[in-house]
Amino acid sequence: MRTEPVLDPLLAVCVRHNLDDVAARLNEMQSFLRDDLALLEAAITGLHQSGPNVLDLAEQAAAYLLSRPGKRIRPLCVMLAARLGGRGFDRSVRDIAVAAELVHAATLLHDDVIDEGMDRRGAPAARMSYGNAASVLAGDHLLITALRRVMDCGLPSVLSGLLDVIAEMVAAEALQLDRRGRFEPDRAAYLRVIEGKTAALFRWGLVSGGVVGELSTEHKDALACAGTALGLAFQLVDDAIDLEEDAAHTGKTALSDLREGKLTWPLVIAVERDPGLQSVIRDCIDQGESVIGGALLARIRATGALAETRAFAAEQARVAEAALATLNPGPAQRALQTVVQTALNRSR
Amino acid sequence: MRTEPVLDPLLAVCVRHNLDDVAARLNEMQSFLRDDLALLEAAITGLHQSGPNVLDLAEQAAAYLLSRPGKRIRPLCVMLAARLGGRGFDRSVRDIAVAAELVHAATLLHDDVIDEGMDRRGAPAARMSYGNAASVLAGDHLLITALRRVMDCGLPSVLSGLLDVIAEMVAAEALQLDRRGRFEPDRAAYLRVIEGKTAALFRWGLVSGGVVGELSTEHKDALACAGTALGLAFQLVDDAIDLEEDAAHTGKTALSDLREGKLTWPLVIAVERDPGLQSVIRDCIDQGESVIGGALLARIRATGALAETRAFAAEQARVAEAALATLNPGPAQRALQTVVQTALNRSR
Repeated sequence: MRTEPVLDPLLAVCVRHNLDDVAARLNEMQSFLRDDLALLEAAITGLHQSGPNVLDLAEQAAAYLLSRPGKRIRPLCVMLAARLGGRGFDRSVRDIAVAAELVHAATLLHDDVIDEGMDRRGAPAARMSYGNAASVLAGDHLLITALRRVMDCGLPSVLSGLLDVIAEMVAAEALQLDRRGRFEPDRAAYLRVIEGKTAALFRWGLVSGGVVGELSTEHKDALACAGTALGLAFQLVDDAIDLEEDAAHTGKTALSDLREGKLTWPLVIAVERDPGLQSVIRDCIDQGESVIGGALLARIRATGALAETRAFAAEQARVAEAALATLNPGPAQRALQTVVQTALNRSR
Repeated sequence: MRTEPVLDPLLAVCVRHNLDDVAARLNEMQSFLRDDLALLEAAITGLHQSGPNVLDLAEQAAAYLLSRPGKRIRPLCVMLAARLGGRGFDRSVRDIAVAAELVHAATLLHDDVIDEGMDRRGAPAARMSYGNAASVLAGDHLLITALRRVMDCGLPSVLSGLLDVIAEMVAAEALQLDRRGRFEPDRAAYLRVIEGKTAALFRWGLVSGGVVGELSTEHKDALACAGTALGLAFQLVDDAIDLEEDAAHTGKTALSDLREGKLTWPLVIAVERDPGLQSVIRDCIDQGESVIGGALLARIRATGALAETRAFAAEQARVAEAALATLNPGPAQRALQTVVQTALNRSR
């Protein structure tokens, strides 16, 4: 029997890290969600199935990115939160889950234009094949498709929440752009950026699933808390991976955050502990590709910033798990705990 | 007494063309709408008044474009349609009118990135000062701000209509991008592009004003028809202006549509009538700046394409006026007829 592509990357994490317990729980999750996940993939890939000759450039760019599935962790959050309330993969759950993935994909398309990113998900970024213009339009197209789907669910609070989240994401990207290349060890600015660009959408996904599942206010609040912490943990791990040794396998070019001048948590810590690093990093970036890596990376790692980042991620994961522990026990709750564990332990 | 900046460009059109009758009607419109227009400007400029030091790059790029007001013709449509139903400039009218302008501004910001446009409204495009990255984010920011304002009006059909319109605009831009540089004399493709990229938002503005003004279904249908025709006339005139002699005064670089490889109506007609022109235009664009203009322009004009385009615009204006004639007579209806006349007669 075919394993579901969505859970494969997560299972691979467990195998690599000998996380037998998590792997066992992922297997449970897989049988629990098998049908839902198949329907999710069908809904996402079905978005652009009118045949390649009628797809315009923008739709091709969007379909190209969506055909290289990520971990689908955001729709998984929606589906599992809805399941907490006993709500299966019905039309509302499907549309909100798909919307979570589309908003994420839209921001990737725009971010690659903004950051001049070359690679995404182990392949050239859409803009490298279809151009910046098609990528901007493809992002707009996915954003509007997501909003349309959520609007058609007839849950105004979910739509209103999504508009807020997209506004937060844009503001966070703008803040990140403002700070680009400065490498100031500003913890508050960093946290504002990743709360907006990553955590807000995780929070929205979990809360919206909870709304569809008709959970109590207390349980939706717990999901909001878990979503924010899970998102922070996820982004912190992403930050660490960019600087870790096996970064060549992450699906994005190793050190790409560093090259793009992004302030990540390991760099905040490294510059705090070794202030001279700030100007060294800036100089390396000004001098270009060839001097990034090697000695620079060794000096960053020598500060212990990577371990510190993994530790901060683990702390956020514990916050998420504590919030999830207040929910009704059962397969959906266990599956959400598993998502937290795999997000924390992944190395790509 | 200060004249309202919004109507000044329209009045200037009338003076240049000795349109005393239209000028007189614009003066009537000015006293009719004086307070509303002042409130509209306050609402638009107030969007980014948190002080320049707290504005991020994306907000700066958005504020930069909005501070160079265009003709505000889209919000004017909303306000006048609402007035048809006796509805003054209340919160809903204001929010929908502002949203119409913001969606328009958002598409300008993204279009300048897509088309690599250098100038906009007689000044360097936002992307020239703030960069492509800030312009992409600024467009996203304005789009979400517009949707938020419309959502808060509590009129689901107006929000749903706006999502449809933005989807149409994106699809039209994508189609235009696909066709760029080909100059195929494809009337149907051209009309699909301008219905989506220009007419749809005019239609939404008039219909939404009609919804707030609680007009009858017949009257809203008439406004939809008038909006589409007005939008087509507006875009056709825009197309003609790009190739007319005083294009240096349009606020966009003369011949910029031609340089960007856009299929415009005069080019459709010119290539239909003088098929050899298609490859000549393509060759000129391939050879770059210096050979565009002069002999090429003379050959395009010799086909009579500009007069034909103005005539087609006049035909659409008559369609719009006929639809408006079915509405209740009064200052709002006369003002809408005036908007159609000035859109038709402008030369910048």
